[in-house]
Amino acid sequence: MEAEFVRWLRDHVPRHPRQRIGLGDDAALIGCSQNANVVVTTDLLTDGVDYHIATDDPRRIGRKALAANLSDIAAMAARPVAAFVSIAFPRQPTAAGTPLELAIALYEGLLPLAAEYDVAIAGGDTNSYDGPLVISVTLLGEVTDRGPLTRCGGKPSDWLLVTGSLGGTILGHSFDFTPRIREALMLHERYELHAGMDLSDGLALDCSRLAAESSCGALIFTDQVPVAKAAHELAAREVVLNNEHATALRHALGDGEDFELLLAAPPDAAAAMLRDQPLECGITHVGELISDSGLWQQTETGQRQPLEPIGWLH
Amino acid sequence: MEAEFVRWLRDHVPRHPRQRIGLGDDAALIGCSQNANVVVTTDLLTDGVDYHIATDDPRRIGRKALAANLSDIAAMAARPVAAFVSIAFPRQPTAAGTPLELAIALYEGLLPLAAEYDVAIAGGDTNSYDGPLVISVTLLGEVTDRGPLTRCGGKPSDWLLVTGSLGGTILGHSFDFTPRIREALMLHERYELHAGMDLSDGLALDCSRLAAESSCGALIFTDQVPVAKAAHELAAREVVLNNEHATALRHALGDGEDFELLLAAPPDAAAAMLRDQPLECGITHVGELISDSGLWQQTETGQRQPLEPIGWLH
Repeated sequence: MEAEFVRWLRDHVPRHPRQRIGLGDDAALIGCSQNANVVVTTDLLTDGVDYHIATDDPRRIGRKALAANLSDIAAMAARPVAAFVSIAFPRQPTAAGTPLELAIALYEGLLPLAAEYDVAIAGGDTNSYDGPLVISVTLLGEVTDRGPLTRCGGKPSDWLLVTGSLGGTILGHSFDFTPRIREALMLHERYELHAGMDLSDGLALDCSRLAAESSCGALIFTDQVPVAKAAHELAAREVVLNNEHATALRHALGDGEDFELLLAAPPDAAAAMLRDQPLECGITHVGELISDSGLWQQTETGQRQPLEPIGWLH
Repeated sequence: MEAEFVRWLRDHVPRHPRQRIGLGDDAALIGCSQNANVVVTTDLLTDGVDYHIATDDPRRIGRKALAANLSDIAAMAARPVAAFVSIAFPRQPTAAGTPLELAIALYEGLLPLAAEYDVAIAGGDTNSYDGPLVISVTLLGEVTDRGPLTRCGGKPSDWLLVTGSLGGTILGHSFDFTPRIREALMLHERYELHAGMDLSDGLALDCSRLAAESSCGALIFTDQVPVAKAAHELAAREVVLNNEHATALRHALGDGEDFELLLAAPPDAAAAMLRDQPLECGITHVGELISDSGLWQQTETGQRQPLEPIGWLH
């Protein structure tokens, strides 16, 4: 089916001006800006872990494969440029139909997102085999004049901010999230940011990672964490020992795939962002970097206690 | 096992000067030369198609995953720079041991090749799932001052040349081949080349592809095709209707994974290459591009007949 699919791709994947050589050669040639650094990220998504081919719409799966990579480029406050999409297709029909129907549906989800973020689909590899659907996307981007935003620039007393709201992603957000490219570029342009990452494995765990890369600890103000409606919904459904509020907070701290931004900024810049609220999705002050190592929480009553770095451990 | 494997990687994967940001951030930052074009290729290898985890040494599998990508960069006469290695690991133990043992063995095959070609292992993604081993490698490279070598620059009357010898790759060459990076760079530097590609799906099929991309046809001098010793060995083993010689030739024309270079060059430059024989692996005149479309063969007796574009069809 590969040959048939490649023909479909040639008809449906638009040629992007950055592609100096089109599909059909041994490799792609991508035009870069004068800035001599290329940002590269790659995500591998597998059936049963990142999606379930038996129940999830393949258009949403295809969209997610690109969106997860866009989120990593956003984490660097970089601009996406060109994606390479490799797919291992099950030889047998799936809930999404024949292998070719599945392939086309994946692209029907992926292409509109590529167009929205002006990303060239510049190459890839397609194979059929006796195994579950595996999608590997590699995304190239370029940094702006402000340079890349990394995890390691945070300093003690920096404020920790997050975009959007967190938790309960399994109810739909893990597929339908907006990669925060525009938000990251705009904040990086307008405000001083010290460090940043995207939240893929849970606020608590990812906070501890950003803090560690910045040689700091992190303190989370648990009562200020923006808990998503979906986290409350999930908590209300669950049979819990704890109360609903605590369970929803636990989802906000520990659920993976929020794909929101976690930023560390000096207090002045952070206060300006909170005052300006320049993002439609909102931006919230959830904690600060501290010189003591480890992850800590500060509750409403002002007490400081260790916080377990809960989250999605691969 | 991912966390444990990532620790192993941090200890064993050397930091390359091209990596402006190391492993541990959301994306890699790769320093590029002033030339504002990046060459990108990607290959996805699956169990049962490109290797058999039950019988093949995982070190050879890991080596092959990188080598196949290096061969694509060689096809563009470009220099490899940085590789991104994503792997979907079976959760259950395989013939190669535990998932962690398998992961380490793959890298033990891949790292020496990366070192030999000065390639940074600059990132990737690792996931465990209920499925067979899938390896996706994306390789970035950069073109030289001579620009990229593509499939589309060939002209009628160009001579077709191949490096090395062809066929019988299943006996070992499909794992142990030398990606022709050095050879491609040297030839591109010293001689005028019009078009090139690497032979991955068989000389006949790949010739027809290069010819089609160059808006030409191709004529193969079947008696001049350099038949590998392994193709003869394979032919001798097989029960055939045809004679051994014809069967060996068929392997040389149709077997995939030669990973040799197919080049189109103007007659003067081609004759100079054949006279100079600048490559240890040898270079052979196997045909020419013609203005008639399609694939043709010319036999010892000088007759011209259509040639079936046999090869590895995905």
